[in-house]
Amino acid sequence: MAVLHPDAGLAARQRQSQLTKPAGSLGRLEALACWLAERSGQVCPPLPQPGIAVFAGDHGVAADGVSAFPSAVTAEMVKNFTRGGAAINVLARAIAAPLEVVDVGVASPLPAELPIVHARVRAGTGNLRTEAAMSLDECRQALAIGRASARRLHAQGVTLLIAGDMGIGNTTASACLVCAFTGATPEDIVGLGTGIDDARRAHKVAVVGEALARAQAAGAHDGESWLAQVGGLEIAAMAGLLLEAAALGIPALLDGFIATAAALAARAIKPAAADWWLASHRSQEQGHLRALAALGLTPLIDLELRLGEGSGAALAVPLIQMAVRLHNEMATFAEAGVSGAA
Amino acid sequence: MAVLHPDAGLAARQRQSQLTKPAGSLGRLEALACWLAERSGQVCPPLPQPGIAVFAGDHGVAADGVSAFPSAVTAEMVKNFTRGGAAINVLARAIAAPLEVVDVGVASPLPAELPIVHARVRAGTGNLRTEAAMSLDECRQALAIGRASARRLHAQGVTLLIAGDMGIGNTTASACLVCAFTGATPEDIVGLGTGIDDARRAHKVAVVGEALARAQAAGAHDGESWLAQVGGLEIAAMAGLLLEAAALGIPALLDGFIATAAALAARAIKPAAADWWLASHRSQEQGHLRALAALGLTPLIDLELRLGEGSGAALAVPLIQMAVRLHNEMATFAEAGVSGAA
Repeated sequence: MAVLHPDAGLAARQRQSQLTKPAGSLGRLEALACWLAERSGQVCPPLPQPGIAVFAGDHGVAADGVSAFPSAVTAEMVKNFTRGGAAINVLARAIAAPLEVVDVGVASPLPAELPIVHARVRAGTGNLRTEAAMSLDECRQALAIGRASARRLHAQGVTLLIAGDMGIGNTTASACLVCAFTGATPEDIVGLGTGIDDARRAHKVAVVGEALARAQAAGAHDGESWLAQVGGLEIAAMAGLLLEAAALGIPALLDGFIATAAALAARAIKPAAADWWLASHRSQEQGHLRALAALGLTPLIDLELRLGEGSGAALAVPLIQMAVRLHNEMATFAEAGVSGAA
Repeated sequence: MAVLHPDAGLAARQRQSQLTKPAGSLGRLEALACWLAERSGQVCPPLPQPGIAVFAGDHGVAADGVSAFPSAVTAEMVKNFTRGGAAINVLARAIAAPLEVVDVGVASPLPAELPIVHARVRAGTGNLRTEAAMSLDECRQALAIGRASARRLHAQGVTLLIAGDMGIGNTTASACLVCAFTGATPEDIVGLGTGIDDARRAHKVAVVGEALARAQAAGAHDGESWLAQVGGLEIAAMAGLLLEAAALGIPALLDGFIATAAALAARAIKPAAADWWLASHRSQEQGHLRALAALGLTPLIDLELRLGEGSGAALAVPLIQMAVRLHNEMATFAEAGVSGAA
């Protein structure tokens, strides 16, 4: 686990008080720049360079009718990612972020020549309502796949990691994880996912309740066992990326509900890793704010998004970069010959 | 006044429903792209190119002790702008926006060789508590100065205008305008500006109350007369920029409390012009949300800023540009061969 640098954080706060603006007038951007200083070990931290890994996996529970979309969409969207047509492709181009797409467990076969990371652990999870989503060994394989993505991106110069998700049914698995790690009830947490109606949501609440009872009876008790029982292959990979970010000493920017569920699991595996994660946006998914609160995080933006893929995190990157540039490039009162407060 | 293109807006909404994402999952970014389509007349609107004019002016009422900073800071910050050391300089560089600084009414003389637009109408306003801030003729001069900035920036290729402010004392003038145009009380609207304590705020509330009573007795009744009685030279110039944006048919992005007060005055002068304005951020200044609500606008972001200079608007520009890129560059379900909702 990389160490923090409280001295750099303190010096950054002192620098903020000397910049040519009323004290505190840059609001959350001031704290953000100091947070990055404390992690980089530099009073003026380098500009964060974002990189994105989108992990794709299918969910056995999709057969229970918990989603508005058929499972086939997971594989179809992976192909869309390789052609540059999805939201995360557009955003990755806009923020000049390298993007890798990883098949951790798509149900239908994908052509070997598809330019993605082929790392399928199994063809979708088991139906978490009636059986373990995956074995503990499969869960550890998926975690390692996420860690490997983090290392590949870091080797390309990435210093701000984003994990995106693609997996029809994954708000159901994520709701299970959020309930498991926060103690909230399914009724509190289950949301509308990609767009289901109230009747189908009531069904989804019941499915999550059944899954949690089954998993508890099966002995789920820690980060890895909960992930294996009620998680997803792509969610475990996202958790792996978050853990490796902390090990490498580079921040990770959480996307929405799925990424936050992954973060709760990752924190259960390694509590100190959470020091390296930032919240990007508040998702429309009902349980997201409660999940973030359990991590002690407050999102930067709320654009009423509910897409996933890492899109909300990518949208927040320019704000984070501008916070750093303001911190590093603004003149101090002394440098500019400007009078302070009376 | 430029015309809207409802046909392009409608076609843009149809396009949004065909992009490879759950309907509505890009939240406010979808409506934003369609809003821009309706104004550009193109289903896929061109990427907005931002440009910033920062208007500087002093306020006679600063002598009454309504601000945490001395009036001298206005001129000192103008010099800081010319050396690139202020927050708005950093942000203008980050978003590649041309930036012009305009002296509409700084109290202390500025060197003629300073690379700014020298357009001083008078050396600061009169003390709005005891006298008109400026004459009606001076107010019209300031409006024309703002209009000229809009035209200069547009001639450089700018298609998204931002008006920034610098003027010690200008939250007092803005509070007067917001009360005048919304019917709110000074107690509702007056805030802490650059950082005053509760005692000084109580004094500021009283000053605003006195100013409003005096202005009403002096016959203030419409946009220009209220601006002249209780506004500011830089605020009138900002209003002029907003009016000219509408005349040119390009959107303007409001910054915080001062810009929103200017927008209320501009709307009183030409109601249809408000069709061309977007809110960027929610300022910490107490009355800002009420002022935006009076314009029917909801801010995109809330970073707890209270700086001015156009900084909050500049920070929102990448989000607006990414909304347009998502709208223009994403594949449709048909193009990508992706299944729709069941």
